[in-house]
Amino acid sequence: MNLTVMKFGGSSVADADKIRRVARRIVEKKRAGRKVVVVVSAPGDMTDDLAAMAGRITSEPSDREMDMLLATGEQVSIALLSMAIHSLGVDAVSLTGPQAGIYADLAHTRARITRIFPEKIRMELARGRVVIVAGFQGINPNQDIATLGRGGSDLTAVALAAALRADDCEIFTDVLGVYTADPRLVPGARKLARLSYDEMLELAGAGSQVMQARSVEVAKKFNVELHIRSTFSHEDGTWIVKEVPRMEDVIVSGVAVDKNQAKLSVLDIPDRPGIAARMFGSLARLHINVDMIIQSAARGRSNDISFTINRGDLRKAVPMLEKIRAELGGKGILVDERIAKVAVVGVGMRSHPGVAAKMFQTLAREKINIEMISTSEIKIACVIKESLSGRAVAVLHQAFGLTGKKGKSLRRSFS
Amino acid sequence: MNLTVMKFGGSSVADADKIRRVARRIVEKKRAGRKVVVVVSAPGDMTDDLAAMAGRITSEPSDREMDMLLATGEQVSIALLSMAIHSLGVDAVSLTGPQAGIYADLAHTRARITRIFPEKIRMELARGRVVIVAGFQGINPNQDIATLGRGGSDLTAVALAAALRADDCEIFTDVLGVYTADPRLVPGARKLARLSYDEMLELAGAGSQVMQARSVEVAKKFNVELHIRSTFSHEDGTWIVKEVPRMEDVIVSGVAVDKNQAKLSVLDIPDRPGIAARMFGSLARLHINVDMIIQSAARGRSNDISFTINRGDLRKAVPMLEKIRAELGGKGILVDERIAKVAVVGVGMRSHPGVAAKMFQTLAREKINIEMISTSEIKIACVIKESLSGRAVAVLHQAFGLTGKKGKSLRRSFS
Repeated sequence: MNLTVMKFGGSSVADADKIRRVARRIVEKKRAGRKVVVVVSAPGDMTDDLAAMAGRITSEPSDREMDMLLATGEQVSIALLSMAIHSLGVDAVSLTGPQAGIYADLAHTRARITRIFPEKIRMELARGRVVIVAGFQGINPNQDIATLGRGGSDLTAVALAAALRADDCEIFTDVLGVYTADPRLVPGARKLARLSYDEMLELAGAGSQVMQARSVEVAKKFNVELHIRSTFSHEDGTWIVKEVPRMEDVIVSGVAVDKNQAKLSVLDIPDRPGIAARMFGSLARLHINVDMIIQSAARGRSNDISFTINRGDLRKAVPMLEKIRAELGGKGILVDERIAKVAVVGVGMRSHPGVAAKMFQTLAREKINIEMISTSEIKIACVIKESLSGRAVAVLHQAFGLTGKKGKSLRRSFS
Repeated sequence: MNLTVMKFGGSSVADADKIRRVARRIVEKKRAGRKVVVVVSAPGDMTDDLAAMAGRITSEPSDREMDMLLATGEQVSIALLSMAIHSLGVDAVSLTGPQAGIYADLAHTRARITRIFPEKIRMELARGRVVIVAGFQGINPNQDIATLGRGGSDLTAVALAAALRADDCEIFTDVLGVYTADPRLVPGARKLARLSYDEMLELAGAGSQVMQARSVEVAKKFNVELHIRSTFSHEDGTWIVKEVPRMEDVIVSGVAVDKNQAKLSVLDIPDRPGIAARMFGSLARLHINVDMIIQSAARGRSNDISFTINRGDLRKAVPMLEKIRAELGGKGILVDERIAKVAVVGVGMRSHPGVAAKMFQTLAREKINIEMISTSEIKIACVIKESLSGRAVAVLHQAFGLTGKKGKSLRRSFS
């Protein structure tokens, strides 16, 4: 239907000048003859400022009231952005999440979108208007405002693109696109022109900050073509699409590193059925995601279990594990926060055996010890010492032929 | 139904400490066994700050988007106040104007309330909750957020009290109540225990800042008993009610002064039918309220027309009048911004002739010249030189026996 969804994050609308710049970008698109729906986050630090206000009132704000409070941030953005578009002579209308017909479930502060009724948006588009929708929010079955949690504005954009059958969904950010590795760590990193949903999902899971996995999952499910690109440049970014026709025989698309992990080991715990279920069931009830798990070979009647979680969850996880250890009679708990997860990702490895071997050899040559390994069809990830992670990414990037291919090292745009 | 509506202005919720104090006040009322609905304005200067943000984007923001923007202020207040009440162990729920069922007309930035559907509020009250409603806002027939303009939060409170058949409506402010005169100008001014709706309306029209006339009109129409009192004291304030049983023979209840007036004179304009209609019709189309009008006795075929308007409207009024004067051939326009309107108000004057004479004599004795006069059944107002207005209020307050009656001069609470 000749429709583009454009999503701008908070740093893109942090002040009046930036809002005006975003407005010009939107007006260009509109004047090029396209219908435009815009999704925008709260300006700059406003969400943090609002949360700090709540913190001065109470240390345990109710989730419902927190959503009522935080949803004002995006409402400020949509009103100001709409005004800026008007002042360029183009008709625009702002809609809150509820007004835009975005329905969410009852999980305040981390709600999921359940349905979208885009009739109001369609009506406004038919009137020739640019429609500006508040990201990160919807209305729940109690008619309350619900926020969608981390990455919520990306999710709003992708879900609207799906509901409206938009041709594409542009995710504007402060980088030029998705890179073969973080260009701050690997100077020879190249911007990728195209990636498959599955590769983007693996990169997001492996520590790439560009986009949250939940939004990519929705894009994949509804086949929404994503274009991740810079607010500050007209250069093409990275397209995230269903199938990537390869011009060359690319095996690995990118190398990612995640330094936000911690390794927990429960030592000498009885080796009998149900122990692991007990432990990981308790972690799940605390909403703690466990990534890699290793169980040592049994020594007599006990063994060690090691696993990785996000560092931010340590505070919740450790007391619970201590309780379980005390009940079951384990010897102790080891916490290691000085680890990093390094991963290579690429759909090409489906048809090319030997990627794992090459990764292990490359790391071994640098005397980098591998503490844990996990694999999927299109990803191999290793836990190593955090202090060695920069070196590991660089040598893997080189080993898989990602550096300076085509003799072109793209300019960085990290702010 | 054992229900009180409590309304708190922006200065009462300007920071976390103030919000906690207001919460304690609400919880006291609730713990005393009453059902409580609270209406609250945006915190402190937030409305001005938001308007300034819009000003940095465009000098002519659309009214609809301005309402979208400004409505966030009250939404912040209701969320924070609700959290503060929770932290005192009392259940509370915040509702935006639209969620509270407040319907408004299409006049963005100065909408009128058209209907209230208070089912949601009733349901939350029945669950034992304190209900916190955002003042100043409603939803219009386009399903857009509309703001109610100046005094909008008072209006929300009074309209909700009427719709819910509340026993009373407490308007919390930074003064102890309504005084016989502004205590900053007249040290002997006394707080009034009771006033009729009509007296309060005349005082509001004559410059009293305590409450806007539009809210008092709604209170009168639906017979809502108002209690104007201080956020910072438990002392009784002033009750605004239908009938005031007088313990004594009070003729004049209060003296008000309005320094926000300007006098305009159009000189030597032709004396023929339709001239006044032309002039005042044009002012009305610019939404300029005209208060007093004097037409001089005709001298031959022309005369002078003088009238008063709010000073803030001069910028709009003068160019329009200049155009009319040029068309009709008047000699010139005089603008006098150094005037004040002084008024005495009291239902007792209905049955007591001679109040006007006493007012004129009192001013004459002080050699204060009266430039214009207007009267109603319960008010006499005079335009005088602004520099003499302080003196005029003091002598009138004394002459009508308002000073130090009962030997009690109440303490001031102006901040």
